Amino acid sequence: MTRLDSYLLCAYNSPVLSLKEIFMPSRTDLANAIRALSMDAVQRANSGHPGAPMGMADIAEVLWNDHMQYNPANPDWVGRDRFVLSNGHGSMLLYSLLHLTGFNLSIDDIKNFRQLHSKTAGHPEYGYADGIETTTGPLGQGIANAVGMAIAERTLGAQFNKPGHNIIDHHTYVFMGDGCLMEGLSHESCAMAGALGLGKLIAFWDDNNISIDGHIDDWMERSVPKRFKSYDWHVVVIDGHDSVAINDAIIEAKSVSDKPSLICCKTIIGFGAPNLAGSHDCHGAPLGNDEVAATRKALGWESAPFEIPADIYAGWDHKQQGATAERVWDDKFVAYKTEFPNEAAEFKRRIAGKMPANFATEMDKFIAKTQEQMPNIASRKASQNTIEVMGALLPELFGGSADLTGSNLTSWSGTVRVNADNANGNYISWGVREFGMAHMMNGMVLYGGFRVYGATFLMFMEFMRNALRMSSLMKIGTIYVYTHDSIGLGEDGPTHQPVEQISTIRMIPGFHSWRGCDAVESAVSWKMAMLRTNAPTALIFSRQNLTPIERTTEQVKNIEKGGYVLRDCKGKADIIFIATGSEVALAVEAAMVMDAKVRVVSMPCTNAYDEQDKDYQESVLTPGVKRLAIEAGVGDGWYKYIGLDGGLVCMTTFGESAPAKDLFKEFGFTVENIIAKAKALLT
Amino acid sequence: MTRLDSYLLCAYNSPVLSLKEIFMPSRTDLANAIRALSMDAVQRANSGHPGAPMGMADIAEVLWNDHMQYNPANPDWVGRDRFVLSNGHGSMLLYSLLHLTGFNLSIDDIKNFRQLHSKTAGHPEYGYADGIETTTGPLGQGIANAVGMAIAERTLGAQFNKPGHNIIDHHTYVFMGDGCLMEGLSHESCAMAGALGLGKLIAFWDDNNISIDGHIDDWMERSVPKRFKSYDWHVVVIDGHDSVAINDAIIEAKSVSDKPSLICCKTIIGFGAPNLAGSHDCHGAPLGNDEVAATRKALGWESAPFEIPADIYAGWDHKQQGATAERVWDDKFVAYKTEFPNEAAEFKRRIAGKMPANFATEMDKFIAKTQEQMPNIASRKASQNTIEVMGALLPELFGGSADLTGSNLTSWSGTVRVNADNANGNYISWGVREFGMAHMMNGMVLYGGFRVYGATFLMFMEFMRNALRMSSLMKIGTIYVYTHDSIGLGEDGPTHQPVEQISTIRMIPGFHSWRGCDAVESAVSWKMAMLRTNAPTALIFSRQNLTPIERTTEQVKNIEKGGYVLRDCKGKADIIFIATGSEVALAVEAAMVMDAKVRVVSMPCTNAYDEQDKDYQESVLTPGVKRLAIEAGVGDGWYKYIGLDGGLVCMTTFGESAPAKDLFKEFGFTVENIIAKAKALLT
Repeated sequence: MTRLDSYLLCAYNSPVLSLKEIFMPSRTDLANAIRALSMDAVQRANSGHPGAPMGMADIAEVLWNDHMQYNPANPDWVGRDRFVLSNGHGSMLLYSLLHLTGFNLSIDDIKNFRQLHSKTAGHPEYGYADGIETTTGPLGQGIANAVGMAIAERTLGAQFNKPGHNIIDHHTYVFMGDGCLMEGLSHESCAMAGALGLGKLIAFWDDNNISIDGHIDDWMERSVPKRFKSYDWHVVVIDGHDSVAINDAIIEAKSVSDKPSLICCKTIIGFGAPNLAGSHDCHGAPLGNDEVAATRKALGWESAPFEIPADIYAGWDHKQQGATAERVWDDKFVAYKTEFPNEAAEFKRRIAGKMPANFATEMDKFIAKTQEQMPNIASRKASQNTIEVMGALLPELFGGSADLTGSNLTSWSGTVRVNADNANGNYISWGVREFGMAHMMNGMVLYGGFRVYGATFLMFMEFMRNALRMSSLMKIGTIYVYTHDSIGLGEDGPTHQPVEQISTIRMIPGFHSWRGCDAVESAVSWKMAMLRTNAPTALIFSRQNLTPIERTTEQVKNIEKGGYVLRDCKGKADIIFIATGSEVALAVEAAMVMDAKVRVVSMPCTNAYDEQDKDYQESVLTPGVKRLAIEAGVGDGWYKYIGLDGGLVCMTTFGESAPAKDLFKEFGFTVENIIAKAKALLT
Repeated sequence: MTRLDSYLLCAYNSPVLSLKEIFMPSRTDLANAIRALSMDAVQRANSGHPGAPMGMADIAEVLWNDHMQYNPANPDWVGRDRFVLSNGHGSMLLYSLLHLTGFNLSIDDIKNFRQLHSKTAGHPEYGYADGIETTTGPLGQGIANAVGMAIAERTLGAQFNKPGHNIIDHHTYVFMGDGCLMEGLSHESCAMAGALGLGKLIAFWDDNNISIDGHIDDWMERSVPKRFKSYDWHVVVIDGHDSVAINDAIIEAKSVSDKPSLICCKTIIGFGAPNLAGSHDCHGAPLGNDEVAATRKALGWESAPFEIPADIYAGWDHKQQGATAERVWDDKFVAYKTEFPNEAAEFKRRIAGKMPANFATEMDKFIAKTQEQMPNIASRKASQNTIEVMGALLPELFGGSADLTGSNLTSWSGTVRVNADNANGNYISWGVREFGMAHMMNGMVLYGGFRVYGATFLMFMEFMRNALRMSSLMKIGTIYVYTHDSIGLGEDGPTHQPVEQISTIRMIPGFHSWRGCDAVESAVSWKMAMLRTNAPTALIFSRQNLTPIERTTEQVKNIEKGGYVLRDCKGKADIIFIATGSEVALAVEAAMVMDAKVRVVSMPCTNAYDEQDKDYQESVLTPGVKRLAIEAGVGDGWYKYIGLDGGLVCMTTFGESAPAKDLFKEFGFTVENIIAKAKALLT
């Protein structure tokens, strides 16, 4: 059937349609543009995933043409609906939408799909092209990001909207596949979304019964709708190729304001491909030239690859509607600003991600005061004291913990919890959901308007590790708080004692991690994390009290460089002790009693130290002087600083269950052992 | 109410009880022994979690006294029911049970709760005490282990049982708390258990409405029963302090043979503590001396701490029943052996974890043949070829993939899938559930009788990282297969390209990871993993073809040492290139054209190399010779081998989406760049 045939058939069957409507492209034609672009781009790149875009094209067409609020000319318009493609391998779906609706993504960009430095990477990469709200690919992550965005929308609205002035009031839409739903992340985030009653979150499940290993019946749960009802979601089941049903389901979902919605869409993967549709063979490989040709024929799509008929472009073009939508919002904001000028200015500041002008100076005052007072406290307590100060300075501060608030010490006197009944807060108890928390946090950060931190024990960083990586890949300033940082955790034993975690966090490209040795370094680490708006930071704190260290003003300033001379000797040192966290005081103590010229370097952030110039680095770690690294974690990462002739007082095994003091002794974190190791190096 | 009062009341209300029964300890008395031991041990240690043991004591009492099959004198009896405490923080529940029923765990061991080198660590540690089936603590993991055990039971039974001879036929029981259910792991593993219809898995949910941040309503899903029904489980809801209801529910659950069962037990956390029960204050801290005294009074428990009345011991003692149960099984096995002597011998071998006698020699033959043939193939393909050989040698081989079978190349000609309809197989498509897969694999390994491998892309190792750590902590031989090992993955882009993963895996204590440079090294890595039965191994393979390398017989043998001289120069080298995987051929090529004396060291397993003696190590990396490490991953870990004056050709950023060959060039993995870096080192 050609397009003309289909128009005529349409006209024949629809006596109420006007001629203009008849000769407008049908919804199917519009959706077929996605199918054509997707199969052709994958074919040209000779790799990629045509199945999902072809299967979800009809859903996307209804959503993007008739429901989503967005302005292709201003992808950052704050009032826009958010769209997340959680099944990120279907990237050509998103690229097709961005191209067709008028974003800055040309047909040449589509042709460059999956080529070096193109906007159209294999998976949607945040920052590579306008309109990509988050990087997706690792399955389940996009839905968690979307839940975070919906949380941010709800709370930002609660913080700024006024009666008659809903400046933040939009939806978050998310597409997801079977893979997303099998991942634990989807459980963690969707259960949370239900508990919070996120009525403006609308998810579409691409229910095509196929994953890479084949038909899913052997390994996937039978009843996703029942599962989501157990999470207290609004759930409907529709034919994902029936535009009327899709439209009705979206309208209904929008009308449900106290529950998130799941629209379960029965679809055929690779819809339109006569021989491959419905099979996992079209999931992650090009259709092949013959099947592409056959699909063209089956769909009645007559245009050559990467050619889109003008009327199809016209049917998709969203530039004018988008501009109008933003103008309407602008008018709303002007009215808001007129009545609430301070709030409007603060809103602008929050959205722009600008810190209050006094932040750094106030932090410096607090740091100086802490140095003066020298409290002997756990660094997690020092962290809480710092949060208390920052809370007063930063209305955008939004905290949380994965069910360890009282242990992580992440609440402060101004903490107001967000829950189903209250959106106007600044803290979430995320439940025992580390990975979900991290990706919901990432979603909030991507949304904007908040500085977000969330906490767990350092050990459980491992549960969420890929979220740290994604923060860094996306260059966003998520702040991860990790307490109970070593065997110092004590009796809970090896399952809860980090050993290799500190070293491995340091290896994530672009990531900074800090492990302060006392209240002062801990406060500085918070300041640095907060100023680092375009990259993520992990702040690592102790369970146990840490001895405060004396410092000059210059030394306090040098903490920011990640590594600095904390205690020096007269003349050239025989040996340099490098330590972090709880081991710094021990290093200082050992240096004081050792019969040698010892310099002690505190290195709370190797990543920041690595970014200093060579002169500074060599002023701290003098070339040619032997070094001993002391850290209650695995030591392999320290060879970078000690070389082949240095020494380590580090962990080589897992920890044990016992009181912390017994463990430090057991594993050699004693003055005697440090001196013995140092002496061995010098002989 | 004293115990005597309660007996009299019991007698008054129960005209059918005999005097003996009346003066037997009541179920409540027996359960109170757990409560007393738990609160006293936590109080003595001054840390720990009394809430869960006190809340689940009644459930445990019914299960361990009237249903579980176990022999305290032989904790390894293969026919026993398995018990997993997924809420591992409630370790005193398990220790109390082990002590009371007669395992080798004395009252002094209980008194040493949470002390250095005691059997009674803060969380149950596998191998520390008899009767601990798995190490638990990280929430959600125990339930995943239990699902794995139930899979192993079902498949081992299917492989060995004969009509009239069910030598493997028992249940797996698991306790779990709200935290376990919030974790994504519980979703991944419980959905899988439902899809497989594991009828002999029976889980108890400690539904006490409390997690550390308080009452869970604000963050946990409302309807766990509905959620588990959506997974196709049999679900009942009972009062977890009503012994009759508990008993009935277990009987019913045992009768459902085609679905796993969830018994939702409404409980009161810290049951018996008059002021703290029902509050999160008794979750993870000692009750305090006053509350301990008040609890004694409230429970009518008159004995001093760590004193258990003789009749209570008698009521719990399971030694005789256990011995009888095992004897009955022994008789069954003798009958089996009589009829099926070969199967019985094979069963014994499998359970003992002994490799077939010809395994190593057959592997060596295959390795020699591969060296001779020098196939130019991807190492994932080389891995598949090796699996094909091992499959024929090892009936215990059990494989799988997290929905990437066709990409990981983990199936072989003898692959038979396990699903709901077929238990008699050797492979599972685990679905898109990396972390769940890993911990179900760990459960299978803990169960015994199988050598288990499971695969995903190396990138998604991060999703399951904590499972690798737990394998290592428990000293079990789980084998992790990771393909698509670097930017060589190509177009899927940075979300799918491992960069820091190889280095960070190397840092897990006790863990070995291998990244072979061609088909020969890949085959050797499989052999080493298979022989390493008491520790886990990761096998890392490429997506793309790898150039085969010539080797002498001695070199082939030296691969097992983790690092060896692959290509040497005449006389002392000016520089040593150290490379792994796909970069080895590049290093060899660069060495051949560089105008200097270059030695090339292939180092597929740094962990194995680190375990060689110093003489061997120095014969490979000659002291004083400059080194250049070449690996398509972050290089920080390589300073351990190159020192401060060495060089790196490594990744410093994330990858990009592009064809692999473009990426290797983009990121400097070229002969020209290697030579340039090497020259810079030598000047």
